[in-house]
Amino acid sequence: MEIVPGALLREINSPEDLKKLNKKQLHKVCNELRQFIIDTVSIHGGHFAASLGVVELSVALHFVYNTPYDQLVWDVGHQAYGHKILTGRRDSFVTNRKYGGLSGFPKRTESDYDTFGVGHSSTSISAALGMAIAAKYKGENRKSIAVIGDGSMTAGMAFEAMNHAGVADSDVLIILNDNCMSIDPNVGALKEYLTDIATSPTYNKIKDDVWKVMGKLPVGKRISQTMAHKLADSLKGIVSSSSNLFEALKLRYFGPIDGHNIIKLVDTLNDLKKIPGPKLLHIITTKGKGYELAEKDQTKWHAPGLFDKITGEIVKQTYLSPQAPKYQDVFGHTLLELAHANEKIMGITPAMPSGSSLKIMMDVMPHRAFDVGICEQHAVTLSAGLATQGLKVFCNIYSSFMQRSFDQVVHDVAIQKLPVVFCLDRAGLVGEDGPTHHGCYDIAYFRGIPNLILSAPMNEQELRNLMFTAQLDSTELPFVIRYPRGNGTMPEWKTPLEPVTIGKGRRLKSGSDVAILSYGHPGNFAQAAIRTLRSEGINPAHYDMRFVKPIDEELLHEVFANYRKIVTIEDGTVVGGFGSAVLEFMAKHRYNAEVVILGIPDRLVEHGSLKELYKECGFDAPSIAETVRQLLSSSVKVTEMIAG
Amino acid sequence: MEIVPGALLREINSPEDLKKLNKKQLHKVCNELRQFIIDTVSIHGGHFAASLGVVELSVALHFVYNTPYDQLVWDVGHQAYGHKILTGRRDSFVTNRKYGGLSGFPKRTESDYDTFGVGHSSTSISAALGMAIAAKYKGENRKSIAVIGDGSMTAGMAFEAMNHAGVADSDVLIILNDNCMSIDPNVGALKEYLTDIATSPTYNKIKDDVWKVMGKLPVGKRISQTMAHKLADSLKGIVSSSSNLFEALKLRYFGPIDGHNIIKLVDTLNDLKKIPGPKLLHIITTKGKGYELAEKDQTKWHAPGLFDKITGEIVKQTYLSPQAPKYQDVFGHTLLELAHANEKIMGITPAMPSGSSLKIMMDVMPHRAFDVGICEQHAVTLSAGLATQGLKVFCNIYSSFMQRSFDQVVHDVAIQKLPVVFCLDRAGLVGEDGPTHHGCYDIAYFRGIPNLILSAPMNEQELRNLMFTAQLDSTELPFVIRYPRGNGTMPEWKTPLEPVTIGKGRRLKSGSDVAILSYGHPGNFAQAAIRTLRSEGINPAHYDMRFVKPIDEELLHEVFANYRKIVTIEDGTVVGGFGSAVLEFMAKHRYNAEVVILGIPDRLVEHGSLKELYKECGFDAPSIAETVRQLLSSSVKVTEMIAG
Repeated sequence: MEIVPGALLREINSPEDLKKLNKKQLHKVCNELRQFIIDTVSIHGGHFAASLGVVELSVALHFVYNTPYDQLVWDVGHQAYGHKILTGRRDSFVTNRKYGGLSGFPKRTESDYDTFGVGHSSTSISAALGMAIAAKYKGENRKSIAVIGDGSMTAGMAFEAMNHAGVADSDVLIILNDNCMSIDPNVGALKEYLTDIATSPTYNKIKDDVWKVMGKLPVGKRISQTMAHKLADSLKGIVSSSSNLFEALKLRYFGPIDGHNIIKLVDTLNDLKKIPGPKLLHIITTKGKGYELAEKDQTKWHAPGLFDKITGEIVKQTYLSPQAPKYQDVFGHTLLELAHANEKIMGITPAMPSGSSLKIMMDVMPHRAFDVGICEQHAVTLSAGLATQGLKVFCNIYSSFMQRSFDQVVHDVAIQKLPVVFCLDRAGLVGEDGPTHHGCYDIAYFRGIPNLILSAPMNEQELRNLMFTAQLDSTELPFVIRYPRGNGTMPEWKTPLEPVTIGKGRRLKSGSDVAILSYGHPGNFAQAAIRTLRSEGINPAHYDMRFVKPIDEELLHEVFANYRKIVTIEDGTVVGGFGSAVLEFMAKHRYNAEVVILGIPDRLVEHGSLKELYKECGFDAPSIAETVRQLLSSSVKVTEMIAG
Repeated sequence: MEIVPGALLREINSPEDLKKLNKKQLHKVCNELRQFIIDTVSIHGGHFAASLGVVELSVALHFVYNTPYDQLVWDVGHQAYGHKILTGRRDSFVTNRKYGGLSGFPKRTESDYDTFGVGHSSTSISAALGMAIAAKYKGENRKSIAVIGDGSMTAGMAFEAMNHAGVADSDVLIILNDNCMSIDPNVGALKEYLTDIATSPTYNKIKDDVWKVMGKLPVGKRISQTMAHKLADSLKGIVSSSSNLFEALKLRYFGPIDGHNIIKLVDTLNDLKKIPGPKLLHIITTKGKGYELAEKDQTKWHAPGLFDKITGEIVKQTYLSPQAPKYQDVFGHTLLELAHANEKIMGITPAMPSGSSLKIMMDVMPHRAFDVGICEQHAVTLSAGLATQGLKVFCNIYSSFMQRSFDQVVHDVAIQKLPVVFCLDRAGLVGEDGPTHHGCYDIAYFRGIPNLILSAPMNEQELRNLMFTAQLDSTELPFVIRYPRGNGTMPEWKTPLEPVTIGKGRRLKSGSDVAILSYGHPGNFAQAAIRTLRSEGINPAHYDMRFVKPIDEELLHEVFANYRKIVTIEDGTVVGGFGSAVLEFMAKHRYNAEVVILGIPDRLVEHGSLKELYKECGFDAPSIAETVRQLLSSSVKVTEMIAG
């Protein structure tokens, strides 16, 4: 189905074209842009509600500012579809999030208008401040603007940046896009505070006063620095009492204003352009704006998949046979089951109740399972604090977001040997979200940390048993369980809970000549490869190692005693990961074997479907089979071929 | 010299003994405690000014609260000497920071009074909140108290925790110990805001009003929950206008009060005990209080080393021959030298201007080198923002603190290939600060990240040349340079600046039978070992690899083509580090050699002198020599011996 942009939008090939329009036409541009996003995402998928919420802001920013000379940083970036469409990517937008196509996030290599690559939250103020400080140092008059949501504002990094911005004397504008939402509803004291500002009649009275003063500005004319300073000072007195938090951080606070009023946005931004120094504009928006269903259920419509834009029906694939569940749901249901039986269990998620399925426990046991907001650091150390009191905390953090709390795991959990359970969802390649979200590194970055138990289940039953084991009183060390995005392999997943011996792997299959050692879910790819190879008369052994730390030395002695050709497979970087653990064992015990390490190569892997990416990285079933064939065949240096 | 505690202090073997005293005696206890700290630290060394600043607070907390049932978390913890002395460790305090002795920080394994191990900043609120939530869940009436400095408050993690505490409905008290200092003077908007509160007559007027109301409390009697709520509400109205930042985060704010008035502290804490919910008490203290020189120069007296307590003269070791400089000073002077020649260079430190010696550049070029406060995350992404504008940022962060900004390095720098230069001071074992501060993990945690260049200089000349190379326009990737705490090897360190070829190591010495491959400063230990071995007729080759990523494959081909016995040496964990990189190369190219990996073992290494710790870990010169001897001698499994 062809997607046809509206009459104005189809002429906008860059912000230059947008600037040719008059202000009154912008409303129509917004309508067309919103419709274009609905049309495209309903057919091609992607993030949805967030971009609808900032249609007016996107248009206003590119209308008012001299982008890309003026530099615009979108926090997180899944709301930047409007920005992409307005900056020369309208026609290529159908390739959004597809293999080889546009990234779902701003990306420096994709466009000069994407000044800073994003994906993880709360980086925008730091980045924009860096740009502003550089501009000042270089004597350039460019503006730097960070657009950040109220959810992202809860991450400490945003606070760190504001604490610096307030005293840095640089020309940075922070636009706080306040919609009370992360992917799930935002939580925490800050959110309540922002709601106070936005709803209190006193605040609104003051707000009106401010805009009365603003109205006296000689809009459209250049005003002198002195005038701007004077204006800012007079505003400050009026605003400060209503805007204490940001003013306390020495940022000039303006707002709140309606983020869907395009004219007011344009006028306000034009005014703010003339006010130097660090400042914050608070705008109120509705996530999903203009698509009624999305406005009503913002979490569901964060990234709904494909849907019928008229009826709002979300396309669900139908299957003839029962399907395996998502790993996240196995986590969610199993945790609730365990928590019913063990009152020491608590659940923590930093802003991913839906994505992690911790919500299943939160709904039933709200006093024992919390969403603490976008704050991975606090989530981990809070878990450590709970663990000191004898509680068994399951702290669920996506692998790539766990990078944000690496120090807390080392310093507060591992060094103290506190038995917190970390469930790393989205470990390994995540598909369409691309390099910022791939969980490539956790095996490597955790493996060097003493006292951690590191595990990965090959299927639902293993996940359940690892979770069961992790919460036993006899488990006295921190316990990491990593599992991938997407589905497992067992439609009948609700197996009886049984303990696993920590540090013990499984021999799934004996064989001859070659052994395949897998870690976690890719063991299933190995099994598929082995089925193919057997039909060719090749009979590899298969070991599911289950733990990379402590690694099963007994099993490895068996492997090295019996096989001289070994292939390791992991859904993580080949540098310092599971394969390297096997090499370290081999060196320590002076074994001598050919070891080929399959996994994510030591370069960025872009976005695409999981199938495409596994293939590209060379550890889908056909690639594994081919590696085994070559390893058996000759003296060809297989490894170099793979590593290339 | 014997250290004699005062008459009261010598009877205090636990807080129980302190509680037997009457309030009027506490002033004398404080004097004795302060004197005991001065007496001990002047002779035995350690952190100094911070503990002097919280003498009264330490006494008041243990006098008022039922520790360790009530749980006290000291942020950072180098100010907790008074706490240690009051909680049963007075007589063992002479062993503070010595090998096998007391830790310089609170540590759970050392005492029940140390509820949470600390070292890195800004963890205390999260930990105490976890304890408070656990107490509430378990129906226990224990109190949780976090003591945090205004410097630590600038780290985002503290903000994350306050954002949660404000809405968590748990009984946690945050004591903000405001002395305007980190190790260096505190910076940022928050600091200015706190100063406003503390100095403004309006605030002080309001403060007095508050304490008038507080005075009406039936102190010493148990008041009902209802009364407490009522009181809190009445206070809130009075206080909130002066305390907007914390009140905005839904914390009840009290203060500021004089943190050196022991009676007022005791009375206030007794009152606050009766007020439920999350609250913050702001106290004003002087770092170094009671030792005049320390009050005047707080940075110098943060950890002055040994000194004459009467004259204040700091003991300086004298040497007959010129000594090699500290690596940090070589960094500081070289950066200034480079910055004079290259106007693109900027310098960033998160709160370590003295410790990193960035201060040398900050003093000369304040517009090009900044201290951004305790905020490693912001420091890295700010650097990335600056780098997008073509600037060459040297961002100096201690190895163990870099753990705090791991995600920012991956997400904002490496993925975007921004050529930021990270100088990791204090990489490897750091000595007396112990396991929280050892920089054991950076080689392992960075090695798996694509696009990073990872290097380590063996001496001053190498450091200078790596820094020179990192700032060249031709260097288009992020560049990490790790170097240890302490001194290098070259008294004549100011060598001409020369470029290094990225990814190229050095053959320092050819040899026979065995090759030693070293990374960074431990190459000097290898050289010493080789001198010993040569006198025994053993002639190892020596390669200084210089880069672990990209590793010098040409040089490694030479090594593996010529030697079947190889020893690798690094000042980092043996899991996934430099040694593993050598194993990965060996596997990839199907070489076959015995490789012994020396480095920091996969367990916690406690505190002690560097000499003691290198020996314990088995990579000082004698241990290296012994490893080589054994490797050459027989089929003994050397590696197992070492790994044990």
